[in-house]
Amino acid sequence: MPRLAYLGPEGTFTEEALRLLDPAAERLPCATVSAALNAARKGDADGAVVPLENSIEGAITTTLDEFAWGEPLLINAELLLPVQFSLLARPGTELAHIKRVYTHPAAITQCRAYISRELPDAVVVSAPSTAAAAQEVSLPGSPYDAAIAARIAGEHYGLVELAVDIGDRSDTVTRFVKVSRPQPLPEATGSDRTTLVVFLADDHPGALLEMLTEFSVRGVNLTRIESRPTGDGIGRYFFHFDFEGHVADARVGEAIAGLHRICGEVRFLGSYPRADGVAPRIKRGTADAEFAEAGDWLTRVRAGLA
Amino acid sequence: MPRLAYLGPEGTFTEEALRLLDPAAERLPCATVSAALNAARKGDADGAVVPLENSIEGAITTTLDEFAWGEPLLINAELLLPVQFSLLARPGTELAHIKRVYTHPAAITQCRAYISRELPDAVVVSAPSTAAAAQEVSLPGSPYDAAIAARIAGEHYGLVELAVDIGDRSDTVTRFVKVSRPQPLPEATGSDRTTLVVFLADDHPGALLEMLTEFSVRGVNLTRIESRPTGDGIGRYFFHFDFEGHVADARVGEAIAGLHRICGEVRFLGSYPRADGVAPRIKRGTADAEFAEAGDWLTRVRAGLA
Amino acid sequence: MPRLAYLGPEGTFTEEALRLLDPAAERLPCATVSAALNAARKGDADGAVVPLENSIEGAITTTLDEFAWGEPLLINAELLLPVQFSLLARPGTELAHIKRVYTHPAAITQCRAYISRELPDAVVVSAPSTAAAAQEVSLPGSPYDAAIAARIAGEHYGLVELAVDIGDRSDTVTRFVKVSRPQPLPEATGSDRTTLVVFLADDHPGALLEMLTEFSVRGVNLTRIESRPTGDGIGRYFFHFDFEGHVADARVGEAIAGLHRICGEVRFLGSYPRADGVAPRIKRGTADAEFAEAGDWLTRVRAGLA
Amino acid sequence: MPRLAYLGPEGTFTEEALRLLDPAAERLPCATVSAALNAARKGDADGAVVPLENSIEGAITTTLDEFAWGEPLLINAELLLPVQFSLLARPGTELAHIKRVYTHPAAITQCRAYISRELPDAVVVSAPSTAAAAQEVSLPGSPYDAAIAARIAGEHYGLVELAVDIGDRSDTVTRFVKVSRPQPLPEATGSDRTTLVVFLADDHPGALLEMLTEFSVRGVNLTRIESRPTGDGIGRYFFHFDFEGHVADARVGEAIAGLHRICGEVRFLGSYPRADGVAPRIKRGTADAEFAEAGDWLTRVRAGLA
Repeated sequence: MPRLAYLGPEGTFTEEALRLLDPAAERLPCATVSAALNAARKGDADGAVVPLENSIEGAITTTLDEFAWGEPLLINAELLLPVQFSLLARPGTELAHIKRVYTHPAAITQCRAYISRELPDAVVVSAPSTAAAAQEVSLPGSPYDAAIAARIAGEHYGLVELAVDIGDRSDTVTRFVKVSRPQPLPEATGSDRTTLVVFLADDHPGALLEMLTEFSVRGVNLTRIESRPTGDGIGRYFFHFDFEGHVADARVGEAIAGLHRICGEVRFLGSYPRADGVAPRIKRGTADAEFAEAGDWLTRVRAGLA
Repeated sequence: MPRLAYLGPEGTFTEEALRLLDPAAERLPCATVSAALNAARKGDADGAVVPLENSIEGAITTTLDEFAWGEPLLINAELLLPVQFSLLARPGTELAHIKRVYTHPAAITQCRAYISRELPDAVVVSAPSTAAAAQEVSLPGSPYDAAIAARIAGEHYGLVELAVDIGDRSDTVTRFVKVSRPQPLPEATGSDRTTLVVFLADDHPGALLEMLTEFSVRGVNLTRIESRPTGDGIGRYFFHFDFEGHVADARVGEAIAGLHRICGEVRFLGSYPRADGVAPRIKRGTADAEFAEAGDWLTRVRAGLA
Repeated sequence: MPRLAYLGPEGTFTEEALRLLDPAAERLPCATVSAALNAARKGDADGAVVPLENSIEGAITTTLDEFAWGEPLLINAELLLPVQFSLLARPGTELAHIKRVYTHPAAITQCRAYISRELPDAVVVSAPSTAAAAQEVSLPGSPYDAAIAARIAGEHYGLVELAVDIGDRSDTVTRFVKVSRPQPLPEATGSDRTTLVVFLADDHPGALLEMLTEFSVRGVNLTRIESRPTGDGIGRYFFHFDFEGHVADARVGEAIAGLHRICGEVRFLGSYPRADGVAPRIKRGTADAEFAEAGDWLTRVRAGLA
Repeated sequence: MPRLAYLGPEGTFTEEALRLLDPAAERLPCATVSAALNAARKGDADGAVVPLENSIEGAITTTLDEFAWGEPLLINAELLLPVQFSLLARPGTELAHIKRVYTHPAAITQCRAYISRELPDAVVVSAPSTAAAAQEVSLPGSPYDAAIAARIAGEHYGLVELAVDIGDRSDTVTRFVKVSRPQPLPEATGSDRTTLVVFLADDHPGALLEMLTEFSVRGVNLTRIESRPTGDGIGRYFFHFDFEGHVADARVGEAIAGLHRICGEVRFLGSYPRADGVAPRIKRGTADAEFAEAGDWLTRVRAGLA
């Protein structure tokens, strides 16, 4: 039974993601993303589940920077988790009696319409995480009447769900990834994604265009690009790329070898099945069979055969 | 005397930036970036000063999203402010007696080496902002012995500076911008920067490459790119671009008109003098005089003249 | 009645092209392409008709070089003329009695199958032009029994047509152009072509790619590219480009102004209706209305309006 | 002793090129470029020497088309031969007595200044080749007093050289290539050139740009591009490319395999030492060692190693 570290405490959306990614895993809650990843790095866990990006908030920069700078880890699975906030309270609490609500600031932002409509007079206080808010509310002497958190937090802390899916947008999604220490990659499934970190060799005009051309000329489609500061001053960045395909695909391999040649450093972060099951759009001339045929042709040409 | 809103409370790095950008301005501290920008939008202030990015933490996403989605504002100045943390305490406090330190989590991260070396036994507690930490420490009954904050916070709240520049990296910088409601642009100085937000018309493979080509073909060099989620689900992004030059420059004008033609929406966020005074690298054939000469030639050609 | 010079003598395919391009014109046959163009340059004629390329033989390099180096001329019309060779003889001649055939070498090459099938024992002799061959055969004491030439040559020289369309390929086409001294351009018709000559500023790696990018970024599709030596040694070339659209089109104007900026010299050779009536494929964002709208937007942006 | 076919008769510039390329070879003169290449194809000769391009006249289109459409041949050497025209006459002839000159039309064009200055009253008549002109002049009863031809033609036909290097430009050069049936390629020398013919898969907008990008992304610099008609109508072309490097070079191999994948057909015409000895400009990241290192890195990445 694998043991997976995650961003805790119990009841976070990350725990929910972990349970969907690996229902049988033993769960090790950690205080921070860094702590969860370090647990995997040091062998305290077999892997870790952390958030990578959210469709409203954007990238989880701690995760990006850990992947870029920390001891290497490889992503081997991803999950897209709808973010559904519930209004949770101790059993017996009624909506009309809620005067003080506790939750994470992101939840305050994302549930603004519900709060102003249903809880116009409530005071809403910031908590370190939604799960911590639920935990606090579950304490008998808590000064708070309700928490806004994941349903799973309610289950953990014995709270009842007074309202469900109270976010302003019902389609908010967080993308989670499961990582492990370097190990054999998941096999290509035909619907895969690959993630890289790329540092520039020198920051000349056109460097980003050159990187993108390495992808496009081999028909590799980007699905995400994020710039992050290198720490060496404003104007110096490195890049995270997600793109269609598996590193075992010929077009992907040639593209990232091209990046490796022209860039300062390329860190491979994994090839893994896409959570959405979307198949790549393969441009004419870039399928594996076409690469193989071209390789055979080149061998004949180099041998002086017609 | 202009009145400028800023991310408060008094004593923040943003206040320090504001005072450098416009020493004579009346200062209006606001609780959040959004509140400061809204003060400028509604006319409660003539403008606002907000952080845009930090050389360690990266983009200030609230600022990016406000610029993209809120009522239009134009950047008319930028400032690069070295981030120097000071250890601040009530007069009479000695370093050896500091048991509890209060500061913002980013400061905890960035002053890790100093803390473990000089305050190995101190408890460090998270505050909502460095200025708020200083304000709290200044209260006679505060449970905290010291704050880590900007020097300016010490001056505001009557604290003494027990140590200066205690960050792990001495070269950390935050970039601030001054914005106003739309108004005539600052004149081109020869060392300018322009900022844009670009939304894709449709998210096809190669869309980013096409955007970058609109810049590169006119010799316009990017200095920053940030992707942000549109909110419509994982995999849907819009982009912030900073680049060399002023929109009054022919090459910049043609490039952004090109983006405007091929993209869904382009929001212009301003052309303003670069804080670092670096002059653009102008590629052969892209200077204003060359655009003007080519325009004259085209006029003759269209008239059927040889 | 305009007077047009052409590549003679009477009875050439060029004369046929001229009569189709301008049936009412007075015709001035000239000995060479250069002579015909010079007649137009000096005012001995109002214009000239010359061949530009053939679907089998390729470019007529004399024409290309005259357009590039001689006094400027502008193309104002083009014609695609099917090349149909006829077997022409003096009245009374029978196929079975033909022993000696006279024609231009290109016709020998292109009628090879007919000759070996129908005239297996005939001697075929090279003539300076197909029209000159017909003229020679028309002389009573000619040593030749038949000529291979354009039907029009038979009409001119009183020959009968023993066989028609005897070329190996029935789809061979020659493209002719009508030129004049610089004068107001033909109006855009919606199906136009533009022709340019471009000299490099300096012959650096990637120069051709840069030129093509000036076209592609504005959605201008090339229809022909020819390289020609500059005369300054092997490895030094200039380029002829044909592309879709009229110089009055915004996308075309911006593209060629871009070339003018980055190249050593651009010589405009004309915008004129396409002989094939094919409409251009206009990429999103490159129609005139989109350029105009983007120009208006840029004006507002430069004025500091939102 | 190898036997090499060439464009004859004896005394042509091609013979001169052959003697410089392989002094020991037995020489087989042929009437046309096609005949010389066919002699090599059929085994009547071990190879052939033919002209490919001239710095004034441009490409020798017969050669280009033979290479593209005929049975495959491989270029294994090239030569740049200065074209120096001599005025040749029968012994005893004096310049003042020359009334009739015989030579190829290209020589007439290229010696225009000399002829009008030194032979203002002479009649100049067109010959099928400069060597044939010299041969004719050598006959006792020839109606011509002098030929303009290569010095080597004078030696062959017993003529004396009345004037040397009489061309208008003293720097005219013809590029010749030596070809053979497919056989092991010459080894890479560090200063090599490679020649290809490329047919498009489908003639879509941007196809040429895509081809050039396959080269540029691997840092392969083009030295020549020629378009030729496919024969299927005006507007349908295929391409000849010369570029720096040897097919054994990693960057060249990957580039042409890329072309092979995206194009309809790529015909390899050989890698051979450059006549000018110029070394390629190798862009960062495209040397063989960098390709090898990137390949090793990719192998490790695919194995799941960090």
